[in-house]
Amino acid sequence: MEHPFNDTYFMKKALQEAEAAFEKGEIPVGAVVVVNDRVIARAHNLTELLNDVTAHAEMQAITAASNFLGGKYLHNCTLYVTLEPCQMCAGALYWSQISKIVYGARDEKRGCGVMGTKLHPKTKIKGGILAEEASILMKRFFIEKRNMN
Amino acid sequence: MEHPFNDTYFMKKALQEAEAAFEKGEIPVGAVVVVNDRVIARAHNLTELLNDVTAHAEMQAITAASNFLGGKYLHNCTLYVTLEPCQMCAGALYWSQISKIVYGARDEKRGCGVMGTKLHPKTKIKGGILAEEASILMKRFFIEKRNMN
Repeated sequence: MEHPFNDTYFMKKALQEAEAAFEKGEIPVGAVVVVNDRVIARAHNLTELLNDVTAHAEMQAITAASNFLGGKYLHNCTLYVTLEPCQMCAGALYWSQISKIVYGARDEKRGCGVMGTKLHPKTKIKGGILAEEASILMKRFFIEKRNMN
Repeated sequence: MEHPFNDTYFMKKALQEAEAAFEKGEIPVGAVVVVNDRVIARAHNLTELLNDVTAHAEMQAITAASNFLGGKYLHNCTLYVTLEPCQMCAGALYWSQISKIVYGARDEKRGCGVMGTKLHPKTKIKGGILAEEASILMKRFFIEKRNMN
C-alpha cells in the first residue's frame, strides 16, 4: 500500500484551499505548510477580499506557519501550493529558508522560474503535483469571470 | 526657496520609521507611501517582533496604503524606503503597479537590482536619496548587535 502522506495527499489539501478561494471569487490558489506529515498552516488567496496584493496564499501560509512554530525560519517545512510561486512569494520563501516547495501547475508568465527569482540554497523545489487539477480550476475561474462581465 | 515636499522631505519620514525599528532591535528599515504630497502609510521592519519574514517595512506599507485607498493598486503613489527593496518587496510592488519607488541605500547583496527582480512596466525607480543616513543607521545596528553577542 502506498504511503498515505505523500505529495499528492498534501497537494489535495492545498487544492481544497484553492477551491475555497474559488468560492469567494478569488483567483483559486491554495497552500498548506507541512512538518513531519502534519499540516501546520493552510491558506488561500484573498487579494480581492482584503484589497491587498500581498495576500497571496503562500504569504499567509508563511505567516501562519511562523506563528505556529514561534520562529521565523521554516526549516524542515514543506510548502504545498497549487500554482508556482510568483516573485513576491518566492522572495518571502527565500527569507524563510524553507526546506522544500512543492507546486502544482506552472505559471509560465509570472512564476518564479521564468522570472528568475532566487531561492535560498537550503530550499528544494519540485513542480507538477496535481498540476492538471490546479490548472483546470484556474481555467474555470477565468472562464466564469469572463462570462460574468 | 526649495519646494518643501521633495524626495528628501519624504525620505526623512521613512528614516524616522527606520529609527523606530532600530529602537525595537529590528534591522532599521523604514518606509512611507505618498500620494499628492500626503503620507498615507508608514511602516518599519518588524520581522523579529512578529517572528515573520514577510513583515518588511515595504510589505506593511503596501497593505496600509491599500487599506487607506480602499483598492489594491497603488497608482499615483510613491513608496519611499530607506533600503533598496528585496525580491519579496519588489515582487509585491510589481503586483501593486505602484507609480514610483524611491530608495535610500543600495542593497548590494539582496536588493532587487542585483537579484534581477522585475518591476511593473508602470513603475519608475530611483535610488540614493539620503543613502548615507540610511547606511550609517544600518551599520550602527549591526555593530551594536555584534557587541551585544
